[in-house]
Amino acid sequence: MIGGVEAGGTKFVLAIGTSTGEIVQRHTLETTHPDDTLREATYWFETRGPIAALGIASFGPLDLDRTSPKWGHITSTPKRGWANCDIVGWFRERLGCPVGFDTDVNAAALAEWNAWRQTDSTLAYVTVGTGIGGGVVVGGQVLGGKTHPEIGHIRVARHPLDRDFAGVCPYHGDCLEGLASGPAIEARWGHRLGDVEVKNAQDMIAHYLGQMCYSLFSITAVERIVLGGGVMQTEGLIELVREHTKQIDDGYLPTGIERQIETPLLGTKSGITGALLLASLALSAAKT
Amino acid sequence: MIGGVEAGGTKFVLAIGTSTGEIVQRHTLETTHPDDTLREATYWFETRGPIAALGIASFGPLDLDRTSPKWGHITSTPKRGWANCDIVGWFRERLGCPVGFDTDVNAAALAEWNAWRQTDSTLAYVTVGTGIGGGVVVGGQVLGGKTHPEIGHIRVARHPLDRDFAGVCPYHGDCLEGLASGPAIEARWGHRLGDVEVKNAQDMIAHYLGQMCYSLFSITAVERIVLGGGVMQTEGLIELVREHTKQIDDGYLPTGIERQIETPLLGTKSGITGALLLASLALSAAKT
Repeated sequence: MIGGVEAGGTKFVLAIGTSTGEIVQRHTLETTHPDDTLREATYWFETRGPIAALGIASFGPLDLDRTSPKWGHITSTPKRGWANCDIVGWFRERLGCPVGFDTDVNAAALAEWNAWRQTDSTLAYVTVGTGIGGGVVVGGQVLGGKTHPEIGHIRVARHPLDRDFAGVCPYHGDCLEGLASGPAIEARWGHRLGDVEVKNAQDMIAHYLGQMCYSLFSITAVERIVLGGGVMQTEGLIELVREHTKQIDDGYLPTGIERQIETPLLGTKSGITGALLLASLALSAAKT
Repeated sequence: MIGGVEAGGTKFVLAIGTSTGEIVQRHTLETTHPDDTLREATYWFETRGPIAALGIASFGPLDLDRTSPKWGHITSTPKRGWANCDIVGWFRERLGCPVGFDTDVNAAALAEWNAWRQTDSTLAYVTVGTGIGGGVVVGGQVLGGKTHPEIGHIRVARHPLDRDFAGVCPYHGDCLEGLASGPAIEARWGHRLGDVEVKNAQDMIAHYLGQMCYSLFSITAVERIVLGGGVMQTEGLIELVREHTKQIDDGYLPTGIERQIETPLLGTKSGITGALLLASLALSAAKT
């Protein structure tokens, strides 16, 4: 048995499972101060008997540079107590097993890639929720190394009806996340996207997400884009995103790229499944 | 000895060289009708003695899907005579050796990656000229497979002083290539960028190329971006692109990303060197 931690900004999901990513037992904690959350998580694993490895799929930004003394740390988050937190070191010291580590979205991308691998050799996973983040998997390897992708912060062309909204990203204002994340939707209309009754609201968000999908296809030639997260649960939104991606392309890329955009095969379990796969990779690496 | 062909829309560069990409002999032809250009190129190789393999780095779009009957073809180009041209089949039949095949920019990316590999494990190469196109290399492999990247066609946010120019891309109007390629510069100002005396002209182009660099970093977490092509030879432009990339980021990504943007180590030889490397890969593949 191996263990997985999906470390999110509002909750921690813990799991015990198999090296192929099957979840056997699962538990959820609220994310508070690391002293409490990490202790509680450790206790949960300890009381379930020894695990051979642990995978951590964490909110970021993270230090993923293997040559850095801060590898395994959450770095500059504004979340109280978590900046500079050595989350890998904490668990390795207490559980005494190899620990795999990556961003929550890279882990989810890995899990979705694994689920789609019968048909696709490259896949991007993007979550659209409180933030927008993603990972790209090519032949079983996530892109990045010293750093990780930050797709939420690309610049986008404005929707014609959205010229004046300043955007909510504290760094960039009107980057993709600043214009199309859950908080951007709340700031514009005061509701979740499914509850907004403004004409064209969904069209506007799909316009931005369609650009993101098109940039993903254009830059990486990825075969599959999987869109997860709370905003993507809005009924009808994925169809609109496909439609916008197709409109942007206007017949240029190989036909049917909009059909390569899908919802997660693993539903909301992509992240925790990915954490188990990170544990499995750490175990293999430790054996060689 | 192996051979390389850099097949461009205006000229063909031919080379004989070594499997590590050293050019021994080099020749340039004008690109006219394929019947003439391909015959002339074949004659040049035939009169230089047998080669063990040939690499073709071609203008596109190309069919790169190994499972497709049209693999090795130039597909839908408007260039007279070249649409649906089986360029790989032509040379393989006449030279009787293994033939490697990829886009001109993927080949250039491979060559630059090879030149930078002491310091960087991932690299993107983008040419900014008549068109804008690029390739991304991760651990020696170019991204893509069934299709290839088309980074020139991503959407970009408008420069504040560039609200009304429609753009020159026949597919998308104001995509990146439509706003920042050589023809877009000519259409706006009637000159090459270095000769334009309009205030802010270079700033405007750098604004778009900075967005492209930022999207590349944000989506792929690439360690190095190499910018080649005629427009990039404008004095001072690369410094402006670095400056815009830094401004867009505004302190979000790991510090110093603008210093990861460089001119080609191989100068204008990236493409033909890449063609030799494609030949070398085809030779290795044929041996196994």
